[in-house]
Amino acid sequence: MPSEQAAVIGAGHTRFGALAEGPRALLRECVDLAVTSVDRGLERTEVDEAYLGTLGFNGWQIGNASAVLAEEARLVGAPVTRVENACASAGFALRAGIQAIESGQRSMVLVVGLEKMTDAASRRRRYWLGVSGDTEWERLAGLTFAGVYGLLASRHMHEYGTPPEALAEVAVKNHAHALKNPKAQFRKAIRREEVLAAPRVADPLGLLDCCPVTDGAAALLLTSVARARRYTDTPVRVVGSGAASDRLAVQERESLTSLAASRRAAAEAFRSSPWDRSALSFAEVHDCFTIAELIALEDLGLVPAGGAAAMTLAGETRVGGRLPVNPDGGLKAKGHPIGATGASQAYEVFLQLRGQAGERQIPGAARALTHNVGGSGASATVTLFEAG
Amino acid sequence: MPSEQAAVIGAGHTRFGALAEGPRALLRECVDLAVTSVDRGLERTEVDEAYLGTLGFNGWQIGNASAVLAEEARLVGAPVTRVENACASAGFALRAGIQAIESGQRSMVLVVGLEKMTDAASRRRRYWLGVSGDTEWERLAGLTFAGVYGLLASRHMHEYGTPPEALAEVAVKNHAHALKNPKAQFRKAIRREEVLAAPRVADPLGLLDCCPVTDGAAALLLTSVARARRYTDTPVRVVGSGAASDRLAVQERESLTSLAASRRAAAEAFRSSPWDRSALSFAEVHDCFTIAELIALEDLGLVPAGGAAAMTLAGETRVGGRLPVNPDGGLKAKGHPIGATGASQAYEVFLQLRGQAGERQIPGAARALTHNVGGSGASATVTLFEAG
Repeated sequence: MPSEQAAVIGAGHTRFGALAEGPRALLRECVDLAVTSVDRGLERTEVDEAYLGTLGFNGWQIGNASAVLAEEARLVGAPVTRVENACASAGFALRAGIQAIESGQRSMVLVVGLEKMTDAASRRRRYWLGVSGDTEWERLAGLTFAGVYGLLASRHMHEYGTPPEALAEVAVKNHAHALKNPKAQFRKAIRREEVLAAPRVADPLGLLDCCPVTDGAAALLLTSVARARRYTDTPVRVVGSGAASDRLAVQERESLTSLAASRRAAAEAFRSSPWDRSALSFAEVHDCFTIAELIALEDLGLVPAGGAAAMTLAGETRVGGRLPVNPDGGLKAKGHPIGATGASQAYEVFLQLRGQAGERQIPGAARALTHNVGGSGASATVTLFEAG
Repeated sequence: MPSEQAAVIGAGHTRFGALAEGPRALLRECVDLAVTSVDRGLERTEVDEAYLGTLGFNGWQIGNASAVLAEEARLVGAPVTRVENACASAGFALRAGIQAIESGQRSMVLVVGLEKMTDAASRRRRYWLGVSGDTEWERLAGLTFAGVYGLLASRHMHEYGTPPEALAEVAVKNHAHALKNPKAQFRKAIRREEVLAAPRVADPLGLLDCCPVTDGAAALLLTSVARARRYTDTPVRVVGSGAASDRLAVQERESLTSLAASRRAAAEAFRSSPWDRSALSFAEVHDCFTIAELIALEDLGLVPAGGAAAMTLAGETRVGGRLPVNPDGGLKAKGHPIGATGASQAYEVFLQLRGQAGERQIPGAARALTHNVGGSGASATVTLFEAG
């Protein structure tokens, strides 16, 4: 049992998109915003540990990401660790931060997620993303991430009769949500017919089923619940956390319609939580492709297997529906700066559970989940949060 | 205060050198050796967390290092996290593993360090290493790691009168130690005159002052002291751990003859230890260049500033001397597979404190220190171990 419970007391987020800023500026901006978000203020000297989730840092002109964060966050001296678990880099960094607080070993932890994707030459960028999946049986045979998720979508349609309209509705909904998120990459409503008619990328997935290439960063400040009240009257507590791995190659997994890493991570997170799935106000799930959101809803136990399409088509996952999913626009429309996503999801939870989400606020939001996937399901984290 | 104390109950180590094996085979080998080293056996299903320290994984054809470790260690399902902190990657991975045990959150943790350097095209390899130092003021101006350490050596000579013979003696000693380490890259005695006459790399450092380019991996199994006796009668306890960061560029640091990150990490490690420096049986320090070993001895408080040269020339740091340093040959002669070094150092401690170091055994070794540096001092970890 943890000796402490962790709570988020501050969070910051850059705009997401194709940005002019380099990685140093993005780190500085999100950390500054997180520090200034602390209601009763925070001295940076109080931060005694930091974790940075980022995939591609060594592909840039600047390496040694943890040292760069130490400088840009003005934390030189404190231990800083870079965590890299593909698209779940920030999810695992957040988990490390939670553990450092829960163990009682650290009193104030900074967790940052970052990716700068548009500066990399496109040949290199594809290379980096590709190596996060299986190489021997997938990448070298030409199977891209879109290709993998296209396979999952085909099989999901075959097994459960999932209609293309359900995938399209995920994109339509997440674009609608992003319209109300000033930091989202795509702030443009799209119609279901547009999604269905978009150029094919990996059948049955079209261009509008895929998340974009994004720059961005997000930061979180964690302390213990016991200390949190010194900083704010409205901390956001962490009440559950789980993580798991799976095989890299989809052909070696037991199922093509479910990610075992997500199921395992969710089971672990809910095991320690004081409440179950039915108590959730909303969920932030890893929708790198539209099919991924449907599979996530099923893997997280938010709907029985095969039920996500009907749930989505019924509007239940829209803000205003029974269980809003990705109110910030999700990876699909907010954008997916690989190593930043896990922290960005928790930023949305921080806003929503404090009633600070503006136009997209979910009334009475009190309990939420974040779900971050690495590779095409080779790893996953699930984190549960509660207001107050 | 930690709720548990951590102990190493198993360790494995590949040969170090220019190896034919790829990263998957190296991971498999070191983990298999660690598992079979557990005196009363271990089921892999008991391992509930793993950390992998590695720098260059994304530079290979295979990425998503944590998923690759999950497969090769046969731990698919368990959470696995990749940690990248330049040359201190495994030092920070070890620290994460220690924390996971100390917090009581995990019961059996695998920590692995890995680097496969010789498969990378040499242009790329230099690029990766270079980006772990400062880019804006050092790398792009042509200052290599050897150049940085050459500057530190020049200044150390200027301030303390450190003679070139003391640097040479570090190389001579570590080569002599490596002669008795069957897993070392260089098993060849060298003479002081050879070191002094070797081609210059970055004056005053010559070729024989520099560590080589190395492939290799090492693995450690950690559990709590309370559980350790189920597995072995001779666990190696972790009694102190510290980590810190510093600025990337040496020109922005307060000193050219000392690494503040090492000093801070050592201070933190000894703060929680039941014994002080005088109780050490030996030390494993980060001798990427000969000057680095001298500076480490001073930064770790094993000798006053400026005193390491005399200590070394007097033979005190040889096996058989007052405080043996790098009995395995150190980075200089055992080899320095970047992300593996922090785990390799702890492997040596595991052997020595259990009396299993063969020809190079330090009689009565009971307490030891490992010291791992990232970049040219941008980060450091120090870990303290005690037998039994």
